[in-house]
Amino acid sequence: MKLVTAIAATLALSSNAFAANYSNQGITPAMLEQAQQAWGAALIQISKTYQEEGHEAATLLATQIIEQAYGYQLGDVLFKPTLASGEQTFRTTSEGALAYFVGGNDDFPYDTGFALKGWSEFGYENAAIFIHGDVAMTMGHVHLTNQYGDVTTVDKTWGFKLTDDDQLRIVLHHSSLPYSGY
Amino acid sequence: MKLVTAIAATLALSSNAFAANYSNQGITPAMLEQAQQAWGAALIQISKTYQEEGHEAATLLATQIIEQAYGYQLGDVLFKPTLASGEQTFRTTSEGALAYFVGGNDDFPYDTGFALKGWSEFGYENAAIFIHGDVAMTMGHVHLTNQYGDVTTVDKTWGFKLTDDDQLRIVLHHSSLPYSGY
Amino acid sequence: MKLVTAIAATLALSSNAFAANYSNQGITPAMLEQAQQAWGAALIQISKTYQEEGHEAATLLATQIIEQAYGYQLGDVLFKPTLASGEQTFRTTSEGALAYFVGGNDDFPYDTGFALKGWSEFGYENAAIFIHGDVAMTMGHVHLTNQYGDVTTVDKTWGFKLTDDDQLRIVLHHSSLPYSGY
Amino acid sequence: MKLVTAIAATLALSSNAFAANYSNQGITPAMLEQAQQAWGAALIQISKTYQEEGHEAATLLATQIIEQAYGYQLGDVLFKPTLASGEQTFRTTSEGALAYFVGGNDDFPYDTGFALKGWSEFGYENAAIFIHGDVAMTMGHVHLTNQYGDVTTVDKTWGFKLTDDDQLRIVLHHSSLPYSGY
Repeated sequence: MKLVTAIAATLALSSNAFAANYSNQGITPAMLEQAQQAWGAALIQISKTYQEEGHEAATLLATQIIEQAYGYQLGDVLFKPTLASGEQTFRTTSEGALAYFVGGNDDFPYDTGFALKGWSEFGYENAAIFIHGDVAMTMGHVHLTNQYGDVTTVDKTWGFKLTDDDQLRIVLHHSSLPYSGY
Repeated sequence: MKLVTAIAATLALSSNAFAANYSNQGITPAMLEQAQQAWGAALIQISKTYQEEGHEAATLLATQIIEQAYGYQLGDVLFKPTLASGEQTFRTTSEGALAYFVGGNDDFPYDTGFALKGWSEFGYENAAIFIHGDVAMTMGHVHLTNQYGDVTTVDKTWGFKLTDDDQLRIVLHHSSLPYSGY
Repeated sequence: MKLVTAIAATLALSSNAFAANYSNQGITPAMLEQAQQAWGAALIQISKTYQEEGHEAATLLATQIIEQAYGYQLGDVLFKPTLASGEQTFRTTSEGALAYFVGGNDDFPYDTGFALKGWSEFGYENAAIFIHGDVAMTMGHVHLTNQYGDVTTVDKTWGFKLTDDDQLRIVLHHSSLPYSGY
Repeated sequence: MKLVTAIAATLALSSNAFAANYSNQGITPAMLEQAQQAWGAALIQISKTYQEEGHEAATLLATQIIEQAYGYQLGDVLFKPTLASGEQTFRTTSEGALAYFVGGNDDFPYDTGFALKGWSEFGYENAAIFIHGDVAMTMGHVHLTNQYGDVTTVDKTWGFKLTDDDQLRIVLHHSSLPYSGY
């Protein structure tokens, strides 16, 4: 597991991993790891911004991150967040993604702002990755640690597309709590 | 939601959807729907074979279906079955997939044979699909009805690759129970 | 299932079911049903108070209800709320119960205020009850409907004690989400 | 946490904790602990019997244990097992309890035999207990370890009645998986 501390997260974000330009030679494993780390760093950064600057600033940051990290400009994104269910299970629009991360949207009344929960560390373990040209998929465990030191582990799948502007964007994101039935 | 009855399932399987040859012009939505229906039909067929012919016959059929429907010959498959967790969460090998579907593998002691549970109907609703050339992804709800009429709904993501032999194979499969926390 | 609407809830509360005095002849099934209805009415009333009068008023009401409906003055209460886990699973003190119902307690950082979630209808179905003198237990399903019309069903056990002031108080409360593993 | 090993479990069962006679002076904390240990020892003993002597022997043993440890002869028992849901959530009859523990009952088709899962260690931590004369309740965590060393922790409530034959019997049993929503 690779842990990204809050400090590293800030650095990663300031180096703007999502904006990394790639000469279009197809996706590499290193590019996937960089995108995964950037996702974790961004989540931590939204939590930190919320605590230090409030909900409006966090919402603005989340909006920018979703714009940059996800592929909503390409069309519907296949996004099933961890704590979503019922009619609001799938967040195919950027509006639904923003609601999940920062809450405050009457159309998604159960969203409490997943990115606001005081996340301070992020780690991931890929079980396997699939790369085909400028499309790739990863699957594995993601570990999130909050300000109280409690760790949440989720089963996480991402699909990435290398877009025409040579940036890696999330076109698929399926996150779920571990099965607990035995 | 599209329901495939046990009879339709048998027909679908006998027409051998997984073996459908496509001239390699990229994946179409119709091809994805056909593959999804074939997956459901195959699950029902394994259940039926188990009830009528026993565990050995069901295991043989499941082996053939995994060989045909999944892309294990291409390398690791990103497979997170619904009822798997802990160290056995991810089934990147065909051995792990077979254990999940029919049980009876000491290396996967918690597997009880998901495909043996008397499934008789299958339905799906795609929330969104993503197609890029010969790679595609789908996300949505899948509904499985068993012999007692009880329906299990899961959040389901599939990734498909059109292989060189012009067949659509599952390279990603993430299935999870709905979040129930509110 | 017996439904208590918001109006009935208000009536039930104003008739003060928790304060009903019983000549000490032991608990009857009717007394248990009255206490269960009063619990549901109280939950709805806290939600309503929160929406109309804000968090402070809701907290005050919840404090009064816990004082009246639960047996914390008798000692530890065996209380496992639906959405509590880890080190904060059990709420043996009134402070822990209040935190669960209205949130806002730094010692229980995961509590978001269960009673504030816009509950508008309450129903219950007892699977069985056990009465022995002035102690009783009930087990069954409880259905809670929120302002969006979504229904949450929980498995619920209550233990009651008829206290020396002839009032029925909750000394045990175990609530859990239904098992979803098959 | 108090761990009862398989050996201790056998001893506890052979000393027949459920059959311990108490002069009827009301329930004591020590009596509750003894009954809890006996429950764990009995579960382990059923697992061991199943592995060594098969399903029929395990079913016979489970029948005897349910007869002795639970209060079905007094009427309905308030029993919500960990892995039960839907219409089969509550097992108010001894038939339903036996089906849960050893499976093989067509009326409870989802039961796979909870007591047959290779349990080898049992531990419990009471969060609080309530005693009133010859009725008592306990609430806390129970930890079960299986043959693979995997530990399952559940939230567990028991209600006990000291019956006229001076034996402590379970009249309430509510077991649930920990909430995993945050």
